[in-house]
Amino acid sequence: MSQLRRVGMVIGIKPEKFDEYKALHADSQPGVRDLLTKYHVHNFSIFVQKLADGHDYLFGYYEYVGDDYEADMAKLAAEPRNIEWLKLCDPCQQPLSGKASWAIMEEIYHND
Amino acid sequence: MSQLRRVGMVIGIKPEKFDEYKALHADSQPGVRDLLTKYHVHNFSIFVQKLADGHDYLFGYYEYVGDDYEADMAKLAAEPRNIEWLKLCDPCQQPLSGKASWAIMEEIYHND
Repeated sequence: MSQLRRVGMVIGIKPEKFDEYKALHADSQPGVRDLLTKYHVHNFSIFVQKLADGHDYLFGYYEYVGDDYEADMAKLAAEPRNIEWLKLCDPCQQPLSGKASWAIMEEIYHND
Repeated sequence: MSQLRRVGMVIGIKPEKFDEYKALHADSQPGVRDLLTKYHVHNFSIFVQKLADGHDYLFGYYEYVGDDYEADMAKLAAEPRNIEWLKLCDPCQQPLSGKASWAIMEEIYHND
């Protein structure tokens, strides 16, 4: 049965790579939009904000609407085009200490 | 005509006030949930994450689905119960430098 799972996540962005990252994610760029849809990742937004430490951070939000989150994430990760996509994005990002990629945040509030 | 506006925003949370803030926002607490709905603020989530500077940050996401964002936000701000609510929440939060409250982030990516 289909579930709705909201995911909020955060990662740093390297200042010298910010323009490149933004261009990769422009509305005109297909990127892996079709793969996100295929694996039930919807309503995906990324926001950016400079924080007190002077670094820019990316905040991602999406909704998973399939019936097996772990399986779909594994299939997405194995897609050759997703692997190529991450080869472009990963060097732009600066994961939080101890994280390999985006840090999944704890949700403390929700109101439909 | 109804519009959809996605808002991503961030603010610090004072460590000594985190438990209180979380309790205020528990699923069991009505808070101002009805007022958010009344003024067309939907799908509102707040996430928390400790960042490299050792501080916890709150990340908020919501969707405005009314037809006059500025007018609805002004009406919400004027609601006596909202004013009381902010008297509880504001002392827990630590706005980013130069901000009076939540900092509205720039959206750099969206995929439906």
